[in-house]
Amino acid sequence: MKQYKEFTVDEKAAFRAAALAAYNGYQAQGLKIDMSRGKPAPVQLDLSGDLFHAVDENNYRSADGTDCRNYGGLLGVEETRALFAEILGVEKKNVIACGNASLTLMFDYVAQCMFDGCGAEPWSRQKDVKFIAVVPGYDRHFTIAQYFGIKLINVPMTPTGPDMDKVEELVKDPTVKGMFCVPKYSNPDGYTYSPETIERLAAMTPAAKDFRVIYDNAYIVHDLYEESDYLPEIFSVAKKYGHEDHFVEFASTSKITLAGAGVACIAASDNNIEMIKKRLTVQVISYDKLNQLRHAKVFKSAADVHARMQQHAAILRPKFEAVLEIMEKELGGLGIAHWTKPRGGYFISLYVDGGSAKRVYELCAQAGLTLTNVGATYPYGVDPDDSNIRIAPSFPTVEELKTCAEILCAAVKVACSENA
Amino acid sequence: MKQYKEFTVDEKAAFRAAALAAYNGYQAQGLKIDMSRGKPAPVQLDLSGDLFHAVDENNYRSADGTDCRNYGGLLGVEETRALFAEILGVEKKNVIACGNASLTLMFDYVAQCMFDGCGAEPWSRQKDVKFIAVVPGYDRHFTIAQYFGIKLINVPMTPTGPDMDKVEELVKDPTVKGMFCVPKYSNPDGYTYSPETIERLAAMTPAAKDFRVIYDNAYIVHDLYEESDYLPEIFSVAKKYGHEDHFVEFASTSKITLAGAGVACIAASDNNIEMIKKRLTVQVISYDKLNQLRHAKVFKSAADVHARMQQHAAILRPKFEAVLEIMEKELGGLGIAHWTKPRGGYFISLYVDGGSAKRVYELCAQAGLTLTNVGATYPYGVDPDDSNIRIAPSFPTVEELKTCAEILCAAVKVACSENA
Repeated sequence: MKQYKEFTVDEKAAFRAAALAAYNGYQAQGLKIDMSRGKPAPVQLDLSGDLFHAVDENNYRSADGTDCRNYGGLLGVEETRALFAEILGVEKKNVIACGNASLTLMFDYVAQCMFDGCGAEPWSRQKDVKFIAVVPGYDRHFTIAQYFGIKLINVPMTPTGPDMDKVEELVKDPTVKGMFCVPKYSNPDGYTYSPETIERLAAMTPAAKDFRVIYDNAYIVHDLYEESDYLPEIFSVAKKYGHEDHFVEFASTSKITLAGAGVACIAASDNNIEMIKKRLTVQVISYDKLNQLRHAKVFKSAADVHARMQQHAAILRPKFEAVLEIMEKELGGLGIAHWTKPRGGYFISLYVDGGSAKRVYELCAQAGLTLTNVGATYPYGVDPDDSNIRIAPSFPTVEELKTCAEILCAAVKVACSENA
Repeated sequence: MKQYKEFTVDEKAAFRAAALAAYNGYQAQGLKIDMSRGKPAPVQLDLSGDLFHAVDENNYRSADGTDCRNYGGLLGVEETRALFAEILGVEKKNVIACGNASLTLMFDYVAQCMFDGCGAEPWSRQKDVKFIAVVPGYDRHFTIAQYFGIKLINVPMTPTGPDMDKVEELVKDPTVKGMFCVPKYSNPDGYTYSPETIERLAAMTPAAKDFRVIYDNAYIVHDLYEESDYLPEIFSVAKKYGHEDHFVEFASTSKITLAGAGVACIAASDNNIEMIKKRLTVQVISYDKLNQLRHAKVFKSAADVHARMQQHAAILRPKFEAVLEIMEKELGGLGIAHWTKPRGGYFISLYVDGGSAKRVYELCAQAGLTLTNVGATYPYGVDPDDSNIRIAPSFPTVEELKTCAEILCAAVKVACSENA
């Protein structure tokens, strides 16, 4: 196939006419579809009907006899901690089972580092606190950093993880205090860090003694295919270098069971767990143990979770594939855009050439398709190349998604044809 | 009855011998009872069996059609907000329905004032931040303040609320930034602020422009008798003086439904809600709306809550009365101790004379009865008079409580007899 840049003037005119015709056709339909956020579809939530019946007025005790209805148990229900420990590949003593949102836990951990410190002066009393932002990345990570006045430095994501040469260079600066990572099926690219990346992350000795990786393992079991991407367990690698304190890991069942009513957890080194407990003791009497118990009753082991995730995959895979297929058909070989082909997670990253992402967003919006805000995948909402578009295929139906993908591709072509 | 101080030497010796005999008798039984915390009894939790069946896989939408299983709805389920609004006597727009713990909300609000400020420089950048501690009070309030390095200044509680002369004097100091209040059935005295106290609290103009009352209405509907103590609604009083920003109110269903799995809320002025939302937006995607919906399904109105609280009262009232009756019988008229007679809440305050509270605690512990740590009801764990003992009658059975009260009274007498 001939690339767009090789097109003759006439070919470009014909391409533009066809793109506009297609685009105008969709616009005329007056559609209204939201593909902006990584929200599970109702049919995925339906998979967790069992959760509603896992505990009741005669069944509210954890295995050790704790009445989960009452106060107490700061670190969470034992079997829920054990379940997370098995999923993450760590020891139960290094896991705290918490409330429904890992975002809140990350916010709070950064707050603790800011105002109480983590092995040194509180970050707020040091000047010029910086974090590495792997880009494109998760907007809500960036927002947490920005909220606390932490300056973000972009490091590009690659198919094997963050550009580690750049990371290793940056951490020589003692004001670089940490980074956010989504190591598996990253948001929005869907890349998984390679074993080499994990080894280098674990091995590096930042100048800052109080360096922390906010290791958001949001998609650890969120495979689209039977075979999972391989991700080494971070603490066991870090331990080789005595660096297990550098990592604080977060996960949740939000996209395993119910997005709004799951259970989140923290996994951390003995030292960090002790530090976190000091704050928790003041902040919380106990998290919702009944909801933790619900999860432990439904999932006796990581294998049970894996089985549930395969049910999710059966719903999500056709959605991802529908989008990818249409993008391949409409944009493949034209050299005007490229995109990722994730094997898990919740997103596809589309990169459009020529700084036209905002224009594509606008065109889609005018045709009734809401995309994630362009720029949201970068700190301060600024994509320096105006290139990345995060596609969130989970919520719409396959039929809707096909329409979404067609509109999106038509918009990409229209935007492209406006440039040259 | 003759007071202890009027006893002859022989009478004192006989009194001591009898007290010791009683005490030793209990000690010999090798009991083990915990009366240390305000934890509902299992039979109280049993009242909320309906909560387990209020939502299920076919019943997960709020009245406006929101799928409560999914993400979204930062401020909470509309009908849950409305329920809290009715209970508190405020408008729904001024209520945010949150997670399971009001303690976490208070911690977080103080954190926000500390590091983001509330209408002025963040407290952390001002020096010498002080709070008024109404004493005796709730240990976890004090712990929050202490965690953030806020200096606590004791102001005595009276049967009509904090000593307002002292409060009004203290708030002339611009470094006094706030106070914790439990305005109804206070912890541990069980006193309710009088309308005059509320009026003075609302009317006062602290020197600090960023003064905040952490208004913990933990026991607003927690009556022991059909007739509730009267407490004016704070915001409507504050509004008269343009002071509604001074108050941020907290409440929860923890002691209405399930202590560990209830729903907490914040009520605040429009200004403060806006400020709190700025932080929430970064911190939370949404709270557990399913649990909020459970509560809204079970309680259609404040009247439903009142009916449930009367069921709690039927369980709690005999416990309070059993303790009070034994204290009256054993200690009444002796002039060695006095105590409160709450009409709601979770605690009775016992004040022993002669600085013997620690000794009483020790004697009780040696007889197998765990009381709330003496001093815990004061900042820094120091009761200057070593007098206050917080009695938490909710968790043990009536029979156990009778034993508790007997041991406690015997210990008070033994301690008294050691003094003079």
